[in-house]
Amino acid sequence: MKLGRYLFYDADMSKDGSMSCATCHRQKHAFTDGNPTHPGVNNDQGVYNVPTLANIGQFQTFTWTEQHVHTLEKQALMPVTGTVPVEMGMFKNEKEIEKRIASNACYVRLFNSAFPDAQGNKVTMENITKAIASFERTLISDHSIWDTKQGYTPEMQQGEKIFFGKGQCATCHTPPLFTDQKFYKVNKDASKAMRTPTLRNIALTAPYFHDGSLDTLKEAIENHDPHLTKVPQLSEQELNQVIAFLNSLTDKQFISDPKFSLPAEPCE
Amino acid sequence: MKLGRYLFYDADMSKDGSMSCATCHRQKHAFTDGNPTHPGVNNDQGVYNVPTLANIGQFQTFTWTEQHVHTLEKQALMPVTGTVPVEMGMFKNEKEIEKRIASNACYVRLFNSAFPDAQGNKVTMENITKAIASFERTLISDHSIWDTKQGYTPEMQQGEKIFFGKGQCATCHTPPLFTDQKFYKVNKDASKAMRTPTLRNIALTAPYFHDGSLDTLKEAIENHDPHLTKVPQLSEQELNQVIAFLNSLTDKQFISDPKFSLPAEPCE
Repeated sequence: MKLGRYLFYDADMSKDGSMSCATCHRQKHAFTDGNPTHPGVNNDQGVYNVPTLANIGQFQTFTWTEQHVHTLEKQALMPVTGTVPVEMGMFKNEKEIEKRIASNACYVRLFNSAFPDAQGNKVTMENITKAIASFERTLISDHSIWDTKQGYTPEMQQGEKIFFGKGQCATCHTPPLFTDQKFYKVNKDASKAMRTPTLRNIALTAPYFHDGSLDTLKEAIENHDPHLTKVPQLSEQELNQVIAFLNSLTDKQFISDPKFSLPAEPCE
Repeated sequence: MKLGRYLFYDADMSKDGSMSCATCHRQKHAFTDGNPTHPGVNNDQGVYNVPTLANIGQFQTFTWTEQHVHTLEKQALMPVTGTVPVEMGMFKNEKEIEKRIASNACYVRLFNSAFPDAQGNKVTMENITKAIASFERTLISDHSIWDTKQGYTPEMQQGEKIFFGKGQCATCHTPPLFTDQKFYKVNKDASKAMRTPTLRNIALTAPYFHDGSLDTLKEAIENHDPHLTKVPQLSEQELNQVIAFLNSLTDKQFISDPKFSLPAEPCE
């Protein structure tokens, strides 16, 4: 876990040392980055909005559109070595990553201790992704206002009623993850089915939708086509109440927990 | 906690030594007792169905109908000293309980260690209820099939869709506790408003409703008046799917965890 955290924050994972996992997955944005999309090391335009990593260990499927990525280990490689578009730019360059990491004595010690049963060189791409995935599984967000009821306002409560009742929002945004992890088109503009995003910490993860095209929660709700999603017409007041409820899914402990942040000391 | 567990299972809390908290709150029934109601030490007929203690530490209001019982400490006294009806029969007899408990050297040791800052005799009714409440707060049930997705069937998934969507069940049975802790009349026969019961472990806590008058989950669902509760007409298949989902709220770990059971060794 300690090892995975170092690797998550290590820019040696990218071609020119300019990007780590944390470049796009920033703790203060609940491990998203606040941009519609994020360009890669070659300035290739990003395609999809960065998804949060909150509770990612409890997901069975990863990425916005792929329905066959079922392990965090597999997902972790995708931005590192992917080419459509180029993100971190290490396609066919896993050996270079292993070399960089293995040149650091502190890392070698951590790999030896994290993989005691392995033989020979333990600094392999497989073990690197295992370690990162282990760290990611610690990113648990379950201390939101809604969870703790600390600071839970009457307006949030009204919104909760609508969310779970009349609004039928929880049909797809199903607790506790606030996603059913299934794939849908929620409006006519959608080119393909997208995985329901979790709503935990949603107030921190603007902009919204798979392409980051919507700036506000109000727009995001209104862009659910009622024919495709069954979301009923809500009054202005009801909409505001639902938004208040969505704000209650913010977990301040999650975004300030020092266990998830850049390690205070480098691995040396 | 250890102290509270002993007290929870101690029949010295009742007039004739025949009833402990655990007499009605049995672990294998998720801390209910399987009966419609439970008679007290004087054979007074019980009035309300025994509520589960699953996750009771997260509740802000206790009992079926009282809207002013806001602490577990206060609730714990009610069956012990209550008279409408008589349950454990210790009305105005708190001193007798203190005397019984204080006569046991093991208990005195546990009280001294649980309440290090108190002066003088620590075996007081106040400390007894504090200890019981502390134990009750450990009764956490969050490893149901729905939580872990181990053994989660397609039928359960279908039922989940209906529960959170069309059925609008989650309006009042709001996760994670599956109750909004509010008070409603759900059918015309109800004499007064009852607190929404949690649905966690609901398959283990038959019979249902505040008077334990309904034997099956199907009857319990069907006795929600659609005019009073907005529960829509469901087809036979949909009803079965919702029941399958309700079964997924069963937490086998909770009902078998040895930490919650009768202590193996007496306090001697």
